[in-house]
Amino acid sequence: MTLLLSNEEVADLLTMPLCLEAMEQACRDVGEGHAANGMRSELLAPTEREDGLYSLLTMSGIIPRFQTGAVRINSDILTWPQSATGLKRVKAPTPDGRYTGLVMLFSTMSGEPLAIFPDGVVQRMRVGAVCGLGAKYLARDDAQTVGLIGTGWQAGAQAMAICAVRKIRKITCYSPTFERCRAFAEDMAKQLGIEVVAATSARDAMRGADVVMCATNSMQPVMEADWVEPGMHISSLKRLEIDTAVAARADVVFTHVQDALSYTLRTTGADLARDTDDKKDKQFHELKQSTLPTLADLLLQKAPGRRNPRDVTVFLNYAGMGYQFAATGYAVLQQARARGVGRELPSDWFTGTVPS
Amino acid sequence: MTLLLSNEEVADLLTMPLCLEAMEQACRDVGEGHAANGMRSELLAPTEREDGLYSLLTMSGIIPRFQTGAVRINSDILTWPQSATGLKRVKAPTPDGRYTGLVMLFSTMSGEPLAIFPDGVVQRMRVGAVCGLGAKYLARDDAQTVGLIGTGWQAGAQAMAICAVRKIRKITCYSPTFERCRAFAEDMAKQLGIEVVAATSARDAMRGADVVMCATNSMQPVMEADWVEPGMHISSLKRLEIDTAVAARADVVFTHVQDALSYTLRTTGADLARDTDDKKDKQFHELKQSTLPTLADLLLQKAPGRRNPRDVTVFLNYAGMGYQFAATGYAVLQQARARGVGRELPSDWFTGTVPS
Repeated sequence: MTLLLSNEEVADLLTMPLCLEAMEQACRDVGEGHAANGMRSELLAPTEREDGLYSLLTMSGIIPRFQTGAVRINSDILTWPQSATGLKRVKAPTPDGRYTGLVMLFSTMSGEPLAIFPDGVVQRMRVGAVCGLGAKYLARDDAQTVGLIGTGWQAGAQAMAICAVRKIRKITCYSPTFERCRAFAEDMAKQLGIEVVAATSARDAMRGADVVMCATNSMQPVMEADWVEPGMHISSLKRLEIDTAVAARADVVFTHVQDALSYTLRTTGADLARDTDDKKDKQFHELKQSTLPTLADLLLQKAPGRRNPRDVTVFLNYAGMGYQFAATGYAVLQQARARGVGRELPSDWFTGTVPS
Repeated sequence: MTLLLSNEEVADLLTMPLCLEAMEQACRDVGEGHAANGMRSELLAPTEREDGLYSLLTMSGIIPRFQTGAVRINSDILTWPQSATGLKRVKAPTPDGRYTGLVMLFSTMSGEPLAIFPDGVVQRMRVGAVCGLGAKYLARDDAQTVGLIGTGWQAGAQAMAICAVRKIRKITCYSPTFERCRAFAEDMAKQLGIEVVAATSARDAMRGADVVMCATNSMQPVMEADWVEPGMHISSLKRLEIDTAVAARADVVFTHVQDALSYTLRTTGADLARDTDDKKDKQFHELKQSTLPTLADLLLQKAPGRRNPRDVTVFLNYAGMGYQFAATGYAVLQQARARGVGRELPSDWFTGTVPS
């Protein structure tokens, strides 16, 4: 049988500690060559709306230790609307408010499909977990305060992750719409059982924080380099969100991966994304990302991390990789099986009687 | 709704003429930059059986004209058993005889999942159609006789394809097991309504044929270069099946694609495939495949084909590409909708309410 899970079920099953544990093991395995990370392939083509593009993104990975292979597929209409704070990349939902992103898990023992679920929740949790691992090994041991820039979907997982790796006392969050920021602060305070307060500027959210986590979809820098204080650990999950001046201010910079192993092809008429992608490429080179030590280097102690409490450390978590979906997917599936959650579909639906 | 189809349903729906038509249009679109072909990503890792590897292969493509994106996924246990005629690459089925290979189709208008079906039948038909297109534009117009080397699953589609593009009078087929060869000949004669006879050697199958189609999974050459006769059109669908001496004998050589845009990664302990892959790489370079004119060049008349009836033409159809599954998938889906075939699954199963 192949287990079908909904985002809601995945959200119930996958705790941040479980996600962190699976991700840390998987990342070590990748670093040691025991796990495989596939090529990201993104194709862009025209769609109905003139201000959008159709994007078909795939990535895959195998974690032999977990006997799990994973494929993640995103089939989206992308748009780049102008907002108060500049250009944003926004996925347009279907008329009934849905997004096509899914993860399929396979057994490395038999090849059979094990599970299918939407990628929304695991995507958020894996981004959180990777920034959490960065903070676990780079932030000061006694870090207690967090500045969180962004209060959207990703920001919640960032807050969960930092609280899972440090004894956090207080989070100060910021987003441009104050009402939204305050609502987020209230929600997170309830969920995490710590003080969460809304700031009226990114500057205020960041001032005096031990850890600063960016979780926006901004294409303009959300902080200035001279806001950086000694001892801070700073993480970013989206290219262009911080500029290279911030990284230049750091004593230690780690990246999740050096190179996203990414292949992008645009068909004729699919040029909308080119400007922002050019900016991202420029930043990739300015950051010398392909020469930075990686999260795996950090976990395996192949590269030195923080040397003293005054060091500024930066962690760049750009580009999702297939192995992360094998890792989080494995954690989800273990829980689902243990708790009898999900709908069993006949595996025959996804297999055939002839080889190909 | 997302349409779920079985291999049997796909086999009923997808005729070779429909497949040829969709594939020819799609290949032209790729050649003109109007359609997109994703990167093939193959990951190899250890599995339970020591004589096998787990393989996770993905490829994707978009044909905007058909408003269709496709992802093909293969999750297999690969083995390389020794046979009477040498080493073969064989996929091991699950205990209940099934293979995990599937195609998912998506709408480029909304991103939504349109259909899911096993890849076995479309895989066979798209290989047949591409060799069919090679023959349509390279074989002599008056070609009437075919030598078919191989009588397995792929061979049937080769026979269907050549009969769809030329007025074929007689096919002479060969495979090492004569009983199997004769059974295939009987089946195909019935199906195609032409004379199909079993030969006792590849040499005999090929002698005097206007078109020679190889459809084996042999890793040793199945023909010798001096069996090639003036005017012949020869096609091969598997690297190592013919050697470079045959291509050297040809006046015109076309390849389906110059480069398979392929990314392969083996984890620690996954070395079983290396020898055969090294041989394939060697042949790729010997054939100078990356400089050969392509099927798209042929269709778009960007490269000269056959000049006269005595020219020997060769067509190499190596490595499946994602766009082919978008093309054949589109043809399947059109038929399924028109005839009300398949099982409708809720699209909500494969989508979520949060973006990722």
